[in-house]
Amino acid sequence: MSAPEMTDLLQERALRLLQEDAGKIEKLIEVQMENLTTRQCPLYEEVLDTQMYGFSREVDFAVRAGLIAELAGKDIISRLERNLAVLYEALDRKAQG
Amino acid sequence: MSAPEMTDLLQERALRLLQEDAGKIEKLIEVQMENLTTRQCPLYEEVLDTQMYGFSREVDFAVRAGLIAELAGKDIISRLERNLAVLYEALDRKAQG
Repeated sequence: MSAPEMTDLLQERALRLLQEDAGKIEKLIEVQMENLTTRQCPLYEEVLDTQMYGFSREVDFAVRAGLIAELAGKDIISRLERNLAVLYEALDRKAQG
Repeated sequence: MSAPEMTDLLQERALRLLQEDAGKIEKLIEVQMENLTTRQCPLYEEVLDTQMYGFSREVDFAVRAGLIAELAGKDIISRLERNLAVLYEALDRKAQG
């Protein structure tokens, strides 16, 4: 493999890994959304918060390391935060109802 | 800059960033060790645990992304864990004394 291909590979792999990790958090959010009407595990929010913190550290590192653009990192985080906000709104509605 | 230099740069920068982040945690540990005899902030351990978790996620990502060798990652984490263990032992001794 040539050196430019190696550099591209590092950057592409970094982005793919982050997208995979984001996907795992999305999955956690989906599972919790599906369970809204049946039961609610109080530890779930804490797990999600911890996962989001760990993931934001990964993204921040990837940006600082020059592997992904700052905007790409912000996009991945924003998307997850929007999904989390939808979940928390639904949890609030359930708590009030 | 040539492509091989670019790849080296990415890997060197990744290692340097991780060492800097590890250094920040070491500093937190040192500060707490210095404060052992004067006062103890109960939130300090939680802050350190959170920082260690975030840092371990960074290191894990760097290894998976092919930026640092697995052994190099383990070395950085082990060193921090040893320092943390010394701190916690000192805290235990203080709690008992």
